[in-house]
Amino acid sequence: MDNILAADIGGTTCKLGLFSDDVELLHKWEIPTETLPDGGRILEDIYEAFIKETANHGLDLTDIAGVGLGVPGPVDFKNGIINGAINLNWDGKKPISYEFEKMSGIPTIVDNDANVAALGEQHKGAGSGYDDVVMVTLGTGVGGGIVVNGLLAHGHGGAAGEIGHLNVDTKRRFQCNCGKKGCLETVASATGIVNLARHHFHNGVETTLSKALEEGTVTSAAVVEAAKVGDTLGMRVLDEVAGFIGLALSDISVLTNPNYFIIGGGVSRAGDILMDGIRKHYRRLTFPPAYENTEIVFAELGNDAGIYGAARLVKQFLT
Amino acid sequence: MDNILAADIGGTTCKLGLFSDDVELLHKWEIPTETLPDGGRILEDIYEAFIKETANHGLDLTDIAGVGLGVPGPVDFKNGIINGAINLNWDGKKPISYEFEKMSGIPTIVDNDANVAALGEQHKGAGSGYDDVVMVTLGTGVGGGIVVNGLLAHGHGGAAGEIGHLNVDTKRRFQCNCGKKGCLETVASATGIVNLARHHFHNGVETTLSKALEEGTVTSAAVVEAAKVGDTLGMRVLDEVAGFIGLALSDISVLTNPNYFIIGGGVSRAGDILMDGIRKHYRRLTFPPAYENTEIVFAELGNDAGIYGAARLVKQFLT
Repeated sequence: MDNILAADIGGTTCKLGLFSDDVELLHKWEIPTETLPDGGRILEDIYEAFIKETANHGLDLTDIAGVGLGVPGPVDFKNGIINGAINLNWDGKKPISYEFEKMSGIPTIVDNDANVAALGEQHKGAGSGYDDVVMVTLGTGVGGGIVVNGLLAHGHGGAAGEIGHLNVDTKRRFQCNCGKKGCLETVASATGIVNLARHHFHNGVETTLSKALEEGTVTSAAVVEAAKVGDTLGMRVLDEVAGFIGLALSDISVLTNPNYFIIGGGVSRAGDILMDGIRKHYRRLTFPPAYENTEIVFAELGNDAGIYGAARLVKQFLT
Repeated sequence: MDNILAADIGGTTCKLGLFSDDVELLHKWEIPTETLPDGGRILEDIYEAFIKETANHGLDLTDIAGVGLGVPGPVDFKNGIINGAINLNWDGKKPISYEFEKMSGIPTIVDNDANVAALGEQHKGAGSGYDDVVMVTLGTGVGGGIVVNGLLAHGHGGAAGEIGHLNVDTKRRFQCNCGKKGCLETVASATGIVNLARHHFHNGVETTLSKALEEGTVTSAAVVEAAKVGDTLGMRVLDEVAGFIGLALSDISVLTNPNYFIIGGGVSRAGDILMDGIRKHYRRLTFPPAYENTEIVFAELGNDAGIYGAARLVKQFLT
């Protein structure tokens, strides 16, 4: 038997999965993430949960070919080291693969959470089985993962897939967390939607959201809802967001020419109003041979994408 | 013995190479490309040249592990099919790998010429041995190749590496051959330099090149030379070109985070005045974790890059 264990470690919960040798999900469950005082128990809690659940399935750890971990921070993939994870209270460099292997005796592989989600969607979700797939996650920020020839791109410093920092807003209106202006994240995340709504409100665009905008309480979800019922400002913001995402996908298309772009994250719940706009702008902006037969679709695996991708990494590199 | 043969097929000459098993160049030579009437003799000429030269080295074709071909047109890499090559008078789809294998009895692999040049520079040239390398070729147009995890990106339609069609000129001033406006190729190729020179001349920027600009005879080389001796228009054009290239490299950095960007092609002969500008703008525009330890350098292999890359493909896929 060559089962696979996977964990997608988040700031609140760890999603855990037991997989078959060919990355079919046999069982999934969650445990709380104990981030206090310094996240020092997290790996041990996962290890204990693995022991218990494999036993429930009549397995022990000698039946496990490998463990895959997704973590919320920058990862040195080759060496299995995470360089800080604010949401876990992990400070500085931590050799996660080494620590988990030492504790469990099982070969362990670790990658960034956005990367494993992309690999999960590529392997078993919306891009299933295609070699070239790019995932864009629109949440509080914008993240992503790029799969080329069936393998995640990491790059030499692990900064591959940082789609949120593509230069798209050439007016460079809003400050990004990275220190620059003009990043995709400043105009296409939940924060970006609020940035754009405020910007157009201050420029006098009509809206039913005036009160929330004046009070500084407007949310990206409210802007999306307003757009859906024809609010002028909401519609303008959503079209602009779609335009920036379409531009980003256009540029990615001539670089790695993926079969599938997979859009996930909270902002993607805007649904068709966003997707129709992205497809329209993408088509308008893209080098024709690069958009032929390229599909832009929503993510399918939801919160399970990370464990699927982490399990797939085990399959690719440890078996 | 497992020698490798490679050909980089151009519109005027075919560069040929005999390599050792570990992609060391043993001998290189050229033959003319017979493009008339329909380029129908090209593969046979290469085959005959291979037979003759391997014999001169005391080898016969049974000593050859594989043949790698670089061709000037869009390639379906998996199936070894080229879809037209204007400079060779090749029309429609041609199953090059199949045809060459049938003639020679030797396993054959084929890729686009810009891709094999990038792989050559990655493997034996300016990026030698690093897994993540991107080459940008600034010639009449702008081409390139993207190496991720040591493998060329092709994408599902073979449009990966079409760096010349990144959206960079948001003013979208000049028409591209692809039908769009705003592509990198319209502002960073030899043609692009002339586009920008004309544009600024019509907008009244001072220059010593007035006569050539009025007569429509200005060349990109003349603009570069003028910039080097302090011509206002020339310097403005070169800084703008460098800015657009810097922007393109910045966006590529957050997608595949290469160790090395390798700049080749005729326009790269502008030298330091171009390179200094590219590095300055790149640094200004790029997400800091993505530019750390990333080098931007000139290509090293010149016309040999293609045969090195074609030989490397044989090593990767046929041995």
